[in-house]
Amino acid sequence: MKIRVIAPIISDEFNSEILEEASQFKAPDMEIDVVNLSRGPASIESHYDEILAAYHVVELVRQAEKDGIEGVFVDCFGDPGVDAARELVGIPVVGGFQPAVLTASLVAGKWSVVTVLQSVVPMINDLARKLGVEKNMVSVRDIDTPVLELTDKGLMERRLLESIQKAVHDDGAEAIVLGCTGMLGLADRLEKDLAKKGVPVPVIDPTASAIGFLEMLIRCNVTQSSLTYPRPTEKERKL
Amino acid sequence: MKIRVIAPIISDEFNSEILEEASQFKAPDMEIDVVNLSRGPASIESHYDEILAAYHVVELVRQAEKDGIEGVFVDCFGDPGVDAARELVGIPVVGGFQPAVLTASLVAGKWSVVTVLQSVVPMINDLARKLGVEKNMVSVRDIDTPVLELTDKGLMERRLLESIQKAVHDDGAEAIVLGCTGMLGLADRLEKDLAKKGVPVPVIDPTASAIGFLEMLIRCNVTQSSLTYPRPTEKERKL
Amino acid sequence: MKIRVIAPIISDEFNSEILEEASQFKAPDMEIDVVNLSRGPASIESHYDEILAAYHVVELVRQAEKDGIEGVFVDCFGDPGVDAARELVGIPVVGGFQPAVLTASLVAGKWSVVTVLQSVVPMINDLARKLGVEKNMVSVRDIDTPVLELTDKGLMERRLLESIQKAVHDDGAEAIVLGCTGMLGLADRLEKDLAKKGVPVPVIDPTASAIGFLEMLIRCNVTQSSLTYPRPTEKERKL
Amino acid sequence: MKIRVIAPIISDEFNSEILEEASQFKAPDMEIDVVNLSRGPASIESHYDEILAAYHVVELVRQAEKDGIEGVFVDCFGDPGVDAARELVGIPVVGGFQPAVLTASLVAGKWSVVTVLQSVVPMINDLARKLGVEKNMVSVRDIDTPVLELTDKGLMERRLLESIQKAVHDDGAEAIVLGCTGMLGLADRLEKDLAKKGVPVPVIDPTASAIGFLEMLIRCNVTQSSLTYPRPTEKERKL
Amino acid sequence: MKIRVIAPIISDEFNSEILEEASQFKAPDMEIDVVNLSRGPASIESHYDEILAAYHVVELVRQAEKDGIEGVFVDCFGDPGVDAARELVGIPVVGGFQPAVLTASLVAGKWSVVTVLQSVVPMINDLARKLGVEKNMVSVRDIDTPVLELTDKGLMERRLLESIQKAVHDDGAEAIVLGCTGMLGLADRLEKDLAKKGVPVPVIDPTASAIGFLEMLIRCNVTQSSLTYPRPTEKERKL
Amino acid sequence: MKIRVIAPIISDEFNSEILEEASQFKAPDMEIDVVNLSRGPASIESHYDEILAAYHVVELVRQAEKDGIEGVFVDCFGDPGVDAARELVGIPVVGGFQPAVLTASLVAGKWSVVTVLQSVVPMINDLARKLGVEKNMVSVRDIDTPVLELTDKGLMERRLLESIQKAVHDDGAEAIVLGCTGMLGLADRLEKDLAKKGVPVPVIDPTASAIGFLEMLIRCNVTQSSLTYPRPTEKERKL
Repeated sequence: MKIRVIAPIISDEFNSEILEEASQFKAPDMEIDVVNLSRGPASIESHYDEILAAYHVVELVRQAEKDGIEGVFVDCFGDPGVDAARELVGIPVVGGFQPAVLTASLVAGKWSVVTVLQSVVPMINDLARKLGVEKNMVSVRDIDTPVLELTDKGLMERRLLESIQKAVHDDGAEAIVLGCTGMLGLADRLEKDLAKKGVPVPVIDPTASAIGFLEMLIRCNVTQSSLTYPRPTEKERKL
Repeated sequence: MKIRVIAPIISDEFNSEILEEASQFKAPDMEIDVVNLSRGPASIESHYDEILAAYHVVELVRQAEKDGIEGVFVDCFGDPGVDAARELVGIPVVGGFQPAVLTASLVAGKWSVVTVLQSVVPMINDLARKLGVEKNMVSVRDIDTPVLELTDKGLMERRLLESIQKAVHDDGAEAIVLGCTGMLGLADRLEKDLAKKGVPVPVIDPTASAIGFLEMLIRCNVTQSSLTYPRPTEKERKL
Repeated sequence: MKIRVIAPIISDEFNSEILEEASQFKAPDMEIDVVNLSRGPASIESHYDEILAAYHVVELVRQAEKDGIEGVFVDCFGDPGVDAARELVGIPVVGGFQPAVLTASLVAGKWSVVTVLQSVVPMINDLARKLGVEKNMVSVRDIDTPVLELTDKGLMERRLLESIQKAVHDDGAEAIVLGCTGMLGLADRLEKDLAKKGVPVPVIDPTASAIGFLEMLIRCNVTQSSLTYPRPTEKERKL
Repeated sequence: MKIRVIAPIISDEFNSEILEEASQFKAPDMEIDVVNLSRGPASIESHYDEILAAYHVVELVRQAEKDGIEGVFVDCFGDPGVDAARELVGIPVVGGFQPAVLTASLVAGKWSVVTVLQSVVPMINDLARKLGVEKNMVSVRDIDTPVLELTDKGLMERRLLESIQKAVHDDGAEAIVLGCTGMLGLADRLEKDLAKKGVPVPVIDPTASAIGFLEMLIRCNVTQSSLTYPRPTEKERKL
Repeated sequence: MKIRVIAPIISDEFNSEILEEASQFKAPDMEIDVVNLSRGPASIESHYDEILAAYHVVELVRQAEKDGIEGVFVDCFGDPGVDAARELVGIPVVGGFQPAVLTASLVAGKWSVVTVLQSVVPMINDLARKLGVEKNMVSVRDIDTPVLELTDKGLMERRLLESIQKAVHDDGAEAIVLGCTGMLGLADRLEKDLAKKGVPVPVIDPTASAIGFLEMLIRCNVTQSSLTYPRPTEKERKL
Repeated sequence: MKIRVIAPIISDEFNSEILEEASQFKAPDMEIDVVNLSRGPASIESHYDEILAAYHVVELVRQAEKDGIEGVFVDCFGDPGVDAARELVGIPVVGGFQPAVLTASLVAGKWSVVTVLQSVVPMINDLARKLGVEKNMVSVRDIDTPVLELTDKGLMERRLLESIQKAVHDDGAEAIVLGCTGMLGLADRLEKDLAKKGVPVPVIDPTASAIGFLEMLIRCNVTQSSLTYPRPTEKERKL
């Protein structure tokens, strides 16, 4: 079972860390590789970034299918290009948002997303409405930290702990979804730290959920519906 | 008051018809011009087409602001690139979907969209959920006609009449939104024909609503919220 | 294009200010006049006031149509008599609520209403549910000031600034709707003052939206659906 | 325990039948009287009729409280004047809609309303949204019969049987609400007839539910919330 | 009219207090008796407790019908076994939740539940969603007191007063539902105390609403829908 | 990784088929065993059956944890005892409903459930509302076949094909969830047959989704939230 992670950004410096993270959650018979964009944004924090990324993501997803890959994870919580890519290929394609929040909806009645910046909150609200789970999402909080500054793991962790506690106590969250796939390698430690502070709340890592969903879909031989994502008709398109 | 219509397709053959249509609904102090894409799809009928178009639409919207334009209509019912473009400029940007269905929500309790193809129905469902008006939309019907075949006006009109009557009688629609901006110059005649058949239902032309909304926003000096559509931060982006 | 504003109150002292306000937002080919009630309440702050006003509003709307008026704005955020009046005439009739909150839904993902008194909050909640936009309305706040005390513009403005900032920071509002048509001539200044305070939020003036919607409907030749608002049958009615 | 039924129409010819119907559902310690309007519509089938009736209903409700009445039923499925009347008195006031559909929500997961005319369907949709139970209401069907023609009991019953069976089989209704308080004395017989036809569905009579709710509220010493229905402030009102 | 209250707990020590409470709200022609479980939990504060109780409640409901009882109140806010019991008998069966919150929906636009413990809040959220009234429920607050400690009436009352005021001021509640049937004999006094503190909010006692609903259903000859609650088919069941 | 399937019925005759089915979807490092109830119903087709099963399911789930099992699948689409069992153990517990419909929500915008009998439709409606995905579920259809008659695979398959086509064409379903875990070993064949008939729709097998979700949760070290499913307090419980 071969899965590909597409990091929808132009830098390859996170690829090895992404591979390491994703590999923790894989089944023994699963192989994972990681690719990134040659053109597009350095990180995704706006609709504009999404559009720039999506334009290139779709081609990488097409290539993945040609390469014999059986499932693709577009490694961003904004699901850039995911809808379009699903139209183009017969293998399952997931982003970071849908698998994570569907998992949260199973383990808890109400949950919050904790993301990077206030500026992406409206995009996450839109994704929740589109998926039809907005009633389960009691809040979207942010840690006021751009994606490219998440490399300071200590700072990120302190801010996440603070935001998560507010989500639980003030908003009534019963589970937490990490709202950026750049928040790597933290979910398990956060969950343990929170339990020690008397806040026993599941923390969902979007990478883990995405890998798990892809595996499930591949084992079940199920892919995205071609009624929801019909194959685009042939016609003139100038790329 | 200068408004620009961006036809998000690579052909310029509809520009004059679009200009004529849009001009019917303009105020005396309003000037309208029409531009189209140099690269992108021939028509928009999938998420894939949207992404290809959006990539180029955002640049045209930026250019419009530089040209002193006061409002932009991205002339497609799928609102391609509209969210991203709103982040980039200070002038109001609308697509075909939002103005039309908000107008329908004012004139009727429940309404239906009648669009071109079954394949775009899921995209319209998503747009309705995102805007928060899905409860008002009782159905999305299609006339099984690709955008580029809408040039046969007689055929389009017959199919629209049939679909609209089903929407009213079977789905309970109290108003109709034409779900493709390529359905030009028909709303008024359809409404009259339907009234003659005993189906007195308002028919909303998305071009008319878009022009009207832009004029209203410009006169009120209101534009899209920079809290919903924050300006993207500076960082590396390889176009 | 002739539009009439009906101030649904018994005093005529606001008529000139209303005319002045409304005229700011009109197209060059639009004429506006203002009338008020001879019987009814001094202001509208309860369902009881609405019923007293509505009884007389409907007759003024009928008269407007007879006078050759092409669109009517019932100048109150509670939309008193608007549903009934729409049944009686073939010209478009709008109140203050619907145009304003539909405009807010276009320019922002989530918005708040800031109104006069706590006592009218349940009425606004009802209007939002009826229109089907309640998910977009994150809060209704009030400035604890009766309609007839809005004449102290300085006080009103200070209280509005305070309430709006709470709506943005505590409730997540991304646009603001002024929830009383008596809050005249302030939207633009409030928006500028808020921007200076680092709260860059669109402020929607219900009068401006109402005028804009009427103009759009008239130019498109669209009016309220006679399926939603059927003409009342003939039968005995003792007035 | 004294209850008053206000028939919000100008004819007194139904008063005795209403009294007889209502009395079937009363507790032994309950007294009921029936009054009607001196001015207003002959029947209520439009928003316009509602406004004409409401104007006079509120005064009758005030009078009821002065007369020592402990609860008022405004005997119409459109709840005309109910919101306003609730602001004016300390005794509970109910119309026909709310008690009936809340009862239906208890006895069944999903229910339909069967009413008189297509023209009142939008009004019932609005009432359902306002009360927040629209998800439980799977359809509103009509028997195409004006209120004043309901006197032909045989015809009404045949049409109701037909509509109810469609509501159950086509719309998935699990209970039926009779959507006009003029459908007197039929619920029990309809329910038995339907059971014989293999359609074992509860039929809710709005009069029965209204009387039951009033009794419950009076025994519990609970009335409408003065936070939802605050007492109107004193100010000039020209009646 | 004979009604039975089933206290779904193994102690009989509350039976006489329950009978006294319930009797305050009964009609003159109504007889009430109270029974409790021989096996099951001491109180109900978890899904686990509900399942243990439900297993025995269903048998007591069956027995009630055999005993000629005309309506059953399963005296717990969690409605344990109510859905299953409704399938087994032809007489109406209600729990504590549904009658109380439907009553609240009639007397107020928005309401809160104030219950015993944080741990039961998710169960109440589920019940509200299932009934379809979750939009009317603005919050569920708790007084951090287990059911079996509600015997300290002074403490319970102080904590309720505090929680209710928060529900009104912070959450916008316009009515309060007492979220445990063990909060006996307090609703009326709380309502008076709150009014004195300037918080004029109706307080709904679930016992009172349940008795009232049963009476209404019995007088109307209406019971739960056998389409929603079909009779279980015969087959092997090892108890 | 050890997973246990609990067949919540008293017969062990399906255990080997269940094991075979479940094993198709397991990862190489996963072990599965199957147990069934010693007391309870022969099949689950009512709330009554659910309660009888749930009472015994909870004990088997407790035992599973003691046996070192890492995840439990309660093998029924009605999720009997799942909420209660989640309170009792620290290992993840899933039923048939939640994993299947969450998977459907990822692969399609709108989906239908096709289940055994009309009588279980209201239970499935309740589960959908409780999970918060009811907007995605466009219909619940049944094949009018009791669980214990599903052994006639040919008949079941013909009826499923017919119902699924109606769900797609009449209800707008874009994916199908098999609404009974007794519909074993069919999803893949159905999907292929439907594709041949020009109905290219994903068919979700609830067993496959449940196994996949358990694996994902175990690999991520995530279990149900103890805020949603708190551990029941110690107190007297007579079993």
